[in-house]
Amino acid sequence: MQKDRILLAHGSGGKLMHELIETLIVPPFKNPILEVLDDAAVIDLGGIRIAYSTDSFVVDPIFFAGGDIGKLAVNGTVNDLAMCGSTPLYLTASLIIEEGFPISDLNRIILSMKYAAEEAAVEVVGGDTKVVNAHSADKIFINTSGIGVIPDGIKVSGANAKPGDMVIVSGYIGDHGISILSQRGDLGFEANISSDCAPLNDLVAQMFKTSGKIHVLRDPTRGGVATVLNEISLQSKVGIVIEEEKVPIREGVRVACEMLGIDPLYVANEGKLVAIVAPEDAPSILECMRNHKYGHNAEVIGTVTKEPSGIVVLKTSVGGKRIIDMLVGEQLPRIC
Amino acid sequence: MQKDRILLAHGSGGKLMHELIETLIVPPFKNPILEVLDDAAVIDLGGIRIAYSTDSFVVDPIFFAGGDIGKLAVNGTVNDLAMCGSTPLYLTASLIIEEGFPISDLNRIILSMKYAAEEAAVEVVGGDTKVVNAHSADKIFINTSGIGVIPDGIKVSGANAKPGDMVIVSGYIGDHGISILSQRGDLGFEANISSDCAPLNDLVAQMFKTSGKIHVLRDPTRGGVATVLNEISLQSKVGIVIEEEKVPIREGVRVACEMLGIDPLYVANEGKLVAIVAPEDAPSILECMRNHKYGHNAEVIGTVTKEPSGIVVLKTSVGGKRIIDMLVGEQLPRIC
Repeated sequence: MQKDRILLAHGSGGKLMHELIETLIVPPFKNPILEVLDDAAVIDLGGIRIAYSTDSFVVDPIFFAGGDIGKLAVNGTVNDLAMCGSTPLYLTASLIIEEGFPISDLNRIILSMKYAAEEAAVEVVGGDTKVVNAHSADKIFINTSGIGVIPDGIKVSGANAKPGDMVIVSGYIGDHGISILSQRGDLGFEANISSDCAPLNDLVAQMFKTSGKIHVLRDPTRGGVATVLNEISLQSKVGIVIEEEKVPIREGVRVACEMLGIDPLYVANEGKLVAIVAPEDAPSILECMRNHKYGHNAEVIGTVTKEPSGIVVLKTSVGGKRIIDMLVGEQLPRIC
Repeated sequence: MQKDRILLAHGSGGKLMHELIETLIVPPFKNPILEVLDDAAVIDLGGIRIAYSTDSFVVDPIFFAGGDIGKLAVNGTVNDLAMCGSTPLYLTASLIIEEGFPISDLNRIILSMKYAAEEAAVEVVGGDTKVVNAHSADKIFINTSGIGVIPDGIKVSGANAKPGDMVIVSGYIGDHGISILSQRGDLGFEANISSDCAPLNDLVAQMFKTSGKIHVLRDPTRGGVATVLNEISLQSKVGIVIEEEKVPIREGVRVACEMLGIDPLYVANEGKLVAIVAPEDAPSILECMRNHKYGHNAEVIGTVTKEPSGIVVLKTSVGGKRIIDMLVGEQLPRIC
C-alpha cells in the first residue's frame, strides 16, 4: 500500500475515507457548518434554515436493475437533504461526459433524472456540461447538489442519539450494492437483486408528522449500515447495540454476501434510512414507516446505550457479541 | 462527425453545446427558473432571493501558471454567483479522484481552494470524495456549487440589455485559454502568459455601489467574449456592435492566437467580466472598475443596438464589419 497516493479505499465511505476527509480536506476549510459532518450542511439564511448538499456519482455500470446513474444522482442528493429533516426543493446537475458517449444513453439518463425529480417533487434549476477526451473519464459522471428548507421545530443530527433510543432501519439492506456487483459480473453469478434506489423525502415527511422525537436520520450508502452507525456513535458519543437476527436482509443478498465473504452490514443502500428515535415513539414511527411504500419492511434493529462510547456492538444470532467497526479498506468500488 | 455520439465540441461552450443543452437537457426539466439560462439560477426562498450555481472543472493540466484546478473551481462558481448580482456566501466541493493520484498534489489543490475561498470571502460548507480506478478519470475533477444572496434592488440578467447600452470588458481577454494551451504544449511554444483566474465578486460589489444601472453581467469563460455576447444578444433580443481595436488583448495572447489561427474573442477567461450598462453611467462604472485590481484594464468595447436582433457585429480596425457567431466546433478542450 502506497501511503502517498490515493487508493480506491479512500473513496469507499469507510475508515480511510474518514481519515482523508478529517485530516486533509476538512481542516483547511474549518468552519462550524462544515464540521458537523452530517449528510448535508445546515445554514441559517436570514432566519430560514436550509439544508445544502452535494454528491458526485461515478457508479459502474451506469444502467442497472432498479435504476441508472441519473436516478441515483437525483435520489442520492434528495436523500441527503431529507436526512437533515429538510424538504428538498431544488437541485443542480453537472455532467462530465466522455467523448464518444452515445447521445441515446445521455437522453435515457436525462429522462431518468426527470422522472426521479418528479417523484421527489424537486426542480432541477441549474446545470453544467463538460466533455473530456476518450479514456479521460469512464462514460459519464454526474454531480448533483441540492437545497432543502428545514421546517421550524425539526432538528435531527448524527450528534443527537441518546441512550435508550431505538434504532430503526427502513427495510432490506444491501440491495443496491449486491445489485451493482452482480451486474458488473463481480459476483460470478446472477443475483437477480434490484437496486433499492428511491427518494426517501416523503417517507421522512410522514415520519415527522407522526413524531417529534426523531433524533437522527441517516441513509446508509457507501460503507453501509455499519459505517453510519459508527459515525453516529462517534458524533453522539454513545454506544449502539444491534441484534443480528432483527436486521432485514433479503435471502438473495444474504447468499451473495456469504459467497463473497462480505458482510451485508457494509453493503451500500440507496433507498433505505436508519432512524434513531425516542423509545416511547418507536412503535408509532415503525407503524407509519410500514404503511409507506419505501418503509414497508422497516424493523427495530437495536438500541442506543451510554457505554461503550463510540462503539457499535452486534449481538449475533447464536448469542455472541462482536464489535462492528467502520468499513476498513475497499469493498465495492464505484458503487455510487 | 458522428451525430449520435458526444463530441468534444459538445463541451466547448459554443453552438453545439447550446444545441445539446437546449434540445436534450433543459426540456425534460422545464421550469421557469432553469429556463432563464443565466450563469446561476435565481430562486425566491421565503422572500430572500438567492443565486445558486454549479460547475464541474476538468482542466488539463491541473496546475498552470496563475492557478490550478482548485483555485479555478472556487473562482468559477464565485464568479457565476457574482454575475447574477449576488453576494457569494457558501460553496460545496465534490472531488472525483483517479486511483494513484499523489496525496501531496491533493493537498496542494485543497490549500489552493482554501486560499481562493478566503480571498472571495466564501465558506466551503459541504463536500464529497469519490475515487475511481486508474484510467477511469484523468487525475482529478472538481465540482463546486455555490449559493449567494442577491441584495434588494439588484436585478441583472442576460435578458436585460437595452439599445443604447454600453458594453464594458473588465480587462485583457484570452489570458486563461492561452495560458492553458501553452502549458499543455498545444502551442508548440512557450507563451509566458498566466491565467487570469480570479474572484470577481468584490469588483462587482464596487460596481453596484457606483451605479444602479448595470443591466447585464457575464463572465466570458468557455466560448469567450464572442459567445457570451451572442448569448446576451439572443436573450435580450438586441444587436451588439463591438469595435475590434478597443478590445484589450495582451501582445503575447495576440501573437499566440495569430500563430494558431484562433480568434481571441473565443478564448476562455477566468477572471474577466462583460458588463452591459446604461450609457449615462458607463464613465463612472469604468472609472470604478479601473480602480479595482481585477478591473484595471477595463474598456468600453461596444454598444447595444436595436437591430439586428440576436446578432453580434465586429467593426474591424481596418473599417470592415463582420458577424461574430457563437463558437462553432471545438477550439480548446478541457480549458476549465
